[in-house]
Amino acid sequence: MALTFDISMSLDGFVTGPRPRAGEPLGEDDGRLHDWMIPYADFHQAHDSGGNVDAAVLDRVHERVGALVMGRSMFDVGEEPWGPNPPFGLPVFVVTHRPRATAPMAGGTTYEFIVDGIDTALDRAREAADGRDVGIQGGANLITQYLAAGLVDDFQIHWVPVLLGGGTRLFEPSAGIARGDLELLRGTPSPSGVVHVEYRVKK
Amino acid sequence: MALTFDISMSLDGFVTGPRPRAGEPLGEDDGRLHDWMIPYADFHQAHDSGGNVDAAVLDRVHERVGALVMGRSMFDVGEEPWGPNPPFGLPVFVVTHRPRATAPMAGGTTYEFIVDGIDTALDRAREAADGRDVGIQGGANLITQYLAAGLVDDFQIHWVPVLLGGGTRLFEPSAGIARGDLELLRGTPSPSGVVHVEYRVKK
Repeated sequence: MALTFDISMSLDGFVTGPRPRAGEPLGEDDGRLHDWMIPYADFHQAHDSGGNVDAAVLDRVHERVGALVMGRSMFDVGEEPWGPNPPFGLPVFVVTHRPRATAPMAGGTTYEFIVDGIDTALDRAREAADGRDVGIQGGANLITQYLAAGLVDDFQIHWVPVLLGGGTRLFEPSAGIARGDLELLRGTPSPSGVVHVEYRVKK
Repeated sequence: MALTFDISMSLDGFVTGPRPRAGEPLGEDDGRLHDWMIPYADFHQAHDSGGNVDAAVLDRVHERVGALVMGRSMFDVGEEPWGPNPPFGLPVFVVTHRPRATAPMAGGTTYEFIVDGIDTALDRAREAADGRDVGIQGGANLITQYLAAGLVDDFQIHWVPVLLGGGTRLFEPSAGIARGDLELLRGTPSPSGVVHVEYRVKK
């Protein structure tokens, strides 16, 4: 039961646009980091030239994951727009300092709030994943914490063909992410311009 | 006659190892950024599992380029190890503040020293390229200057499967590189673990 994540990254290494802030966690990226997912999110199938490739990549991500861990900031921003029938359909373990009762939602999503840190959240997610893998939903801060702790087994970067010139970096040396060698598992260029690249973390 | 460059980059965005300095311009990367080129440099053909793919990528880079521009720091470090028969076999225009007589070397390389800035160096290289493209040999600082000036037409990143945790970033916001959209031209995963990705700069 691997711990994995996938994330869209600009060619200059940013996972948000410039000036991310409360209420606008993706900063001023004009949607350029995530627009490639829109055909998938809207229709769940191919609708533009990259749709088949991108949708297949995202399907593979979703199929392997049985539970999610999520940071508090992402949850706070997302809870309202995701609404009563969130798009996860999985147990979601929110790492937070504020205790809150478990919230079962429509469509198979449950929000469970973990106040004991990222290790406990991962343990709980593994139990709930029913033999499948655990995905780190985000945000970048939580992914960075799991990377720095050496707990990530593999991950996928969706390289988006833009230069953003600012924003949040996932791989920030000050975040304490260990230096390390990676094994390339797969590289998939898409007609959308995104290059999907999967790595295993060598341990 | 396009202006192009190609460069090896770690997944965390570094084009040198940590703590680059005079005399050790690649920092402490233990060779991990450039080792994938060794089979090519040594034998100019396939010798390991990635050799065919990597060599073909490098061949395409070399075939299209008819002249090079190079920064002074790179030249200062390289002049001695490259020796009397440098590996370029092309006119090389060194951007510097110190005038020096043009130096014809063995094997078709000439070093010409340009004191009038990057535009003049590019003009001179274009004249010398004999209808082929101009390549920015490096270092990162000169590439950054051409990127910031909006003069680069296309480029290729060789994504090396390592996290270096420090070093010189090519895409550093403070370097003034314009935000911009790119067109994916080609993405080529190699058995060596390197993913070669070519982009055109949209203008």
